[in-house]
Amino acid sequence: VRGGKTLPELNGQGIAALDRLAATEAIAYDFLAKGGKHSRPFITLAVYDALTGSRGTLGDGATHLADLPDPVRRGALSIETFHKASLVHDDIEDDDAFRYGEDTIHRKFGVPTAINVGDYLIGLGYRLVSRETPRLGADVAADILDRLAEAHMKLAEGQGAELLWRDGGNKRLAPLDALKIYALKTAPAFEAALLTGARLAGPVDAYLEPIGQFARNLGVAFQILNDLKDWEGDCDNKLASGGDVLGGRPTVLWALALEALDEARRAELESLVARQTADAGVVERVRQLYRAAGVFDKAARLVDKHQERAEAVADAIEPEELRRLFYYLIDTVLDRPAPSEPAVLTPTLPFGLPVVSAS
Amino acid sequence: VRGGKTLPELNGQGIAALDRLAATEAIAYDFLAKGGKHSRPFITLAVYDALTGSRGTLGDGATHLADLPDPVRRGALSIETFHKASLVHDDIEDDDAFRYGEDTIHRKFGVPTAINVGDYLIGLGYRLVSRETPRLGADVAADILDRLAEAHMKLAEGQGAELLWRDGGNKRLAPLDALKIYALKTAPAFEAALLTGARLAGPVDAYLEPIGQFARNLGVAFQILNDLKDWEGDCDNKLASGGDVLGGRPTVLWALALEALDEARRAELESLVARQTADAGVVERVRQLYRAAGVFDKAARLVDKHQERAEAVADAIEPEELRRLFYYLIDTVLDRPAPSEPAVLTPTLPFGLPVVSAS
Repeated sequence: VRGGKTLPELNGQGIAALDRLAATEAIAYDFLAKGGKHSRPFITLAVYDALTGSRGTLGDGATHLADLPDPVRRGALSIETFHKASLVHDDIEDDDAFRYGEDTIHRKFGVPTAINVGDYLIGLGYRLVSRETPRLGADVAADILDRLAEAHMKLAEGQGAELLWRDGGNKRLAPLDALKIYALKTAPAFEAALLTGARLAGPVDAYLEPIGQFARNLGVAFQILNDLKDWEGDCDNKLASGGDVLGGRPTVLWALALEALDEARRAELESLVARQTADAGVVERVRQLYRAAGVFDKAARLVDKHQERAEAVADAIEPEELRRLFYYLIDTVLDRPAPSEPAVLTPTLPFGLPVVSAS
Repeated sequence: VRGGKTLPELNGQGIAALDRLAATEAIAYDFLAKGGKHSRPFITLAVYDALTGSRGTLGDGATHLADLPDPVRRGALSIETFHKASLVHDDIEDDDAFRYGEDTIHRKFGVPTAINVGDYLIGLGYRLVSRETPRLGADVAADILDRLAEAHMKLAEGQGAELLWRDGGNKRLAPLDALKIYALKTAPAFEAALLTGARLAGPVDAYLEPIGQFARNLGVAFQILNDLKDWEGDCDNKLASGGDVLGGRPTVLWALALEALDEARRAELESLVARQTADAGVVERVRQLYRAAGVFDKAARLVDKHQERAEAVADAIEPEELRRLFYYLIDTVLDRPAPSEPAVLTPTLPFGLPVVSAS
């Protein structure tokens, strides 16, 4: 951080103490260094590692972050930077109050500065790769930048669909459209992380199609599973799940319910949501209607289907190291008892990182 | 626009009529196609034209847009796309109500969707270039993308400094810091537009330094001149100028006043601003204090200085076509009687576009 100023000085009245010209960078770097599981940059580094066969060169069966080439680490950091940028803007869009156990950026510094810090982080995401052009080679840099830009636009399309559904009056939703939104919201980040790692390791033409398939199916399965988890557990969790129903994310559960219920119960479901109050009674009645519509079973089968497709991609992919990584990602991202766990699944955890999940 | 839907359907209750998955693209494309003088993409095309010598190939002394290679036009469109993205986010940050004679995007669709549409446009700005990698060559594409990312980050730093000054309690400001903010806010867009045009035409190593100098000095001169214009004219304009003083842009005029006034009058100036009411009496008193501090004369001399530096760059640059373009830009962007107008200045207006200004 330029000037070595610390963040507390930035906040509130103390803002004047900090060089304003360095403040945006300081806020952005501070947020970038904050929490999160770093699952996306982990994926990038793990794919690079799987494809370059560098694992185990240290004798302890693991690759250490510091041993990876600098441009590779910057590529992974770029993936994390885009993720962090999207969090800053998402938190404004959802008016979330907390992130990483602290006030969100817009709660700390106001919406205008938060929008701008997000913009800065997006620029940094691109620049971390574009500046490496001399070391990466222009072909590699331009390819990665194109993948990043493509993911960036798809995410915005998915986020836009979600916001317009949330903020619009019409809550109709076809299951296929819900799945399309899931694919746009979750797959591009996986795909960009995977492809960046692969492109840093070498040509990717042979991987474009399978990685796209894998990311889409894994992302969609992850999101449906996430929705289902909202409905598990005790009464406390019911209120949280109510938030999703009433707060207006266009879930596939909601779409499946609308599709299966008769007109009277569909109208009842819509009227429950239109009330915009998530008391336990409302949430319980929504749960009954979901159950009557067979939503939970159908959704679980959709998870199975997408997981199986992701596994089929993994089965066909080479080299072995990449296949094992794909199975490792399926298991950790989906975090459910795998119905068809393959015998080969004994992945070494590279980098000593903890189990990955996609949140 | 995908699906051929029209925008009125998107607005308000009609939103449901449009495919939500296509809505972000539709809103973004619609805004991209809207008004503005297109001064930035004009600069890109004009530099390309000056350096490739394609002007006049049609016999009428002008290059027509349709005759330029497709990747060149997309490069120029990228520059415009970044500009439009920044307008969407700036309008939220300033809570401006109108743009191009219509409601701003956030007034039409809400802040969340507007943030997201701006994000989409940023992604599109990069993608317009990155997708052209096969036709441009990876070297050219990666170079341009790096310039775009650099400009993107600088603009966010400048915007951040301005916002933190505006939203912070401390209104102290050194003239040098005001000029640095101007350079960050205005120069990167000029520079990216110029360099993109130059890089589309060929290698730019020899142009990096002069184009950077030219953009910085032209941008700063433009911005100071803009500030001065706020104080010209009749009583109606006074209220507009009051907006700048009281609404909180960190102008160099303000900084020069703080620097030159004695303590009592500086305190008076600060108390006038702290009131946050821009009635004619307040504005007139600020004008008197500015005059007493010699602000207007000093600022005019700063414009001269930066204009002269831009002209010095122009004098030294080759080829002749580029020098003439630089002088044309100085004259049109600054739009003031040139004190040292060169005899050679008889530029053909390429593309039949109207006179350029930077707003």
